[in-house]
Amino acid sequence: MVNGIERPLDLLNNSKGKEILVQLKGDRQLVGTLLAFDIHINVVLDNAKEVANGETKRSMGLTFLRGDTIVFISPASTASKGE
Amino acid sequence: MVNGIERPLDLLNNSKGKEILVQLKGDRQLVGTLLAFDIHINVVLDNAKEVANGETKRSMGLTFLRGDTIVFISPASTASKGE
Amino acid sequence: MVNGIERPLDLLNNSKGKEILVQLKGDRQLVGTLLAFDIHINVVLDNAKEVANGETKRSMGLTFLRGDTIVFISPASTASKGE
Amino acid sequence: MVNGIERPLDLLNNSKGKEILVQLKGDRQLVGTLLAFDIHINVVLDNAKEVANGETKRSMGLTFLRGDTIVFISPASTASKGE
Amino acid sequence: MVNGIERPLDLLNNSKGKEILVQLKGDRQLVGTLLAFDIHINVVLDNAKEVANGETKRSMGLTFLRGDTIVFISPASTASKGE
Amino acid sequence: MVNGIERPLDLLNNSKGKEILVQLKGDRQLVGTLLAFDIHINVVLDNAKEVANGETKRSMGLTFLRGDTIVFISPASTASKGE
Amino acid sequence: MVNGIERPLDLLNNSKGKEILVQLKGDRQLVGTLLAFDIHINVVLDNAKEVANGETKRSMGLTFLRGDTIVFISPASTASKGE
Repeated sequence: MVNGIERPLDLLNNSKGKEILVQLKGDRQLVGTLLAFDIHINVVLDNAKEVANGETKRSMGLTFLRGDTIVFISPASTASKGE
Repeated sequence: MVNGIERPLDLLNNSKGKEILVQLKGDRQLVGTLLAFDIHINVVLDNAKEVANGETKRSMGLTFLRGDTIVFISPASTASKGE
Repeated sequence: MVNGIERPLDLLNNSKGKEILVQLKGDRQLVGTLLAFDIHINVVLDNAKEVANGETKRSMGLTFLRGDTIVFISPASTASKGE
Repeated sequence: MVNGIERPLDLLNNSKGKEILVQLKGDRQLVGTLLAFDIHINVVLDNAKEVANGETKRSMGLTFLRGDTIVFISPASTASKGE
Repeated sequence: MVNGIERPLDLLNNSKGKEILVQLKGDRQLVGTLLAFDIHINVVLDNAKEVANGETKRSMGLTFLRGDTIVFISPASTASKGE
Repeated sequence: MVNGIERPLDLLNNSKGKEILVQLKGDRQLVGTLLAFDIHINVVLDNAKEVANGETKRSMGLTFLRGDTIVFISPASTASKGE
Repeated sequence: MVNGIERPLDLLNNSKGKEILVQLKGDRQLVGTLLAFDIHINVVLDNAKEVANGETKRSMGLTFLRGDTIVFISPASTASKGE
């Protein structure tokens, strides 16, 4: 169920403390635990890792991501729920 | 009939809870159920899937899409209605 | 005659309910009936079709187009009037 | 003579009803009669034609051009005056 | 000497009526006489010429340049002064 | 632990005086000591070095970075903490 | 020492009258004496030179640089101080 998502930022709010997948422009992909975000969709991840083809390319720990490089954000726990 | 579309966002409002196709810059394409959007055209999809050439490339479940990466949005139910 | 076009948006206003050609960045081209637009040049087309080299590539029905991906918009009825 | 151009938009104002050349990003070039413009440099051309290497590629009639795709605008009548 | 340049726009103000070189994004280069500019760095050149490798590619006469395509502007008279 | 990060900028505030990794658009990477930042995510680094594949490409000392070229920022000390 | 840099623009203010290196988007690099800047990071350089691989490609004298093409700015005097 997807209760409680009235506005787009509600999904980010619901995802605090959870692992998310962040797709960046230019095909870069990060996973990490969402700690904070703002209205520009700047986000801070903990335990951030850059991943490609299912493998970790580098571990960056705490990471600040600028919102304007983000294409989409998806809570990792929902990734296969839809099928 | 296309009653009730006075402003562009009316189409998005009418599409809440329905499956939509979202074309992103850089040729990425997603389908999913529209849960929420805002004036920046940030949207949240449920059961989001990235598709290419009619096939599902990955399933992402709940997904937040930043508006500035979106080219167009089309309710899936209207895709072949026009012919 | 081109009466009544004092400001650029007047052309879009005059084109409501008519077929228009929309050229997008990255060489994508759509045709459809203009239903609505706003000051960001976000537009909604009915019976939208993506076209290339005079052929329909896909039919998308009702479609919301984000203004910032648009290069130009031309009412289809005027396309050959100029010669 | 270039009397009366105190601000950049004065040139556009002086060019209303005259043929102009519009250079777009990505090397696209249009000619047409300037009917209207606004502070975003959105413009409407009548008898717009896309040209390349001195030849007409397509005729589009009335055309709305989004300002942010424009590189420069030059009144056609001044093109060879400078030599 | 470079007296009187307290703010960046002072250089443009000092260059009115003089020949300037304008470097655009995407490697296009124009020279012409600066007639007018505004805070968006939109400029109008008289006797504008597109140049490449020291040769004139085309003469455009009066030309309106949108500020957001400009990389830098240099008064032609200062080009070799610095050595 | 990641105490005290309520908003994205808190991470940058916590990183003042510490070494950070800055990933720029177009694959450029810098490391340096964070001295200052603002809400546009403009930052000043001391002892800035451009790095690629773990090697220093050039040393630039004090460096002002424009926020809109930044993809992400990560405190260097947290880079391997996550595993 | 890096005293007195509380905000990013303080570094630019401290660099007035000094030689700086300016890295532009698209790999272009300029050096010159910083005369003026504003909050958009528009800058004016005196004795500006475009450099590549340590060699001067062209000398442009006084030059106005639009802020949005700038990646980073570094005072030349600090370039090797950090090691």
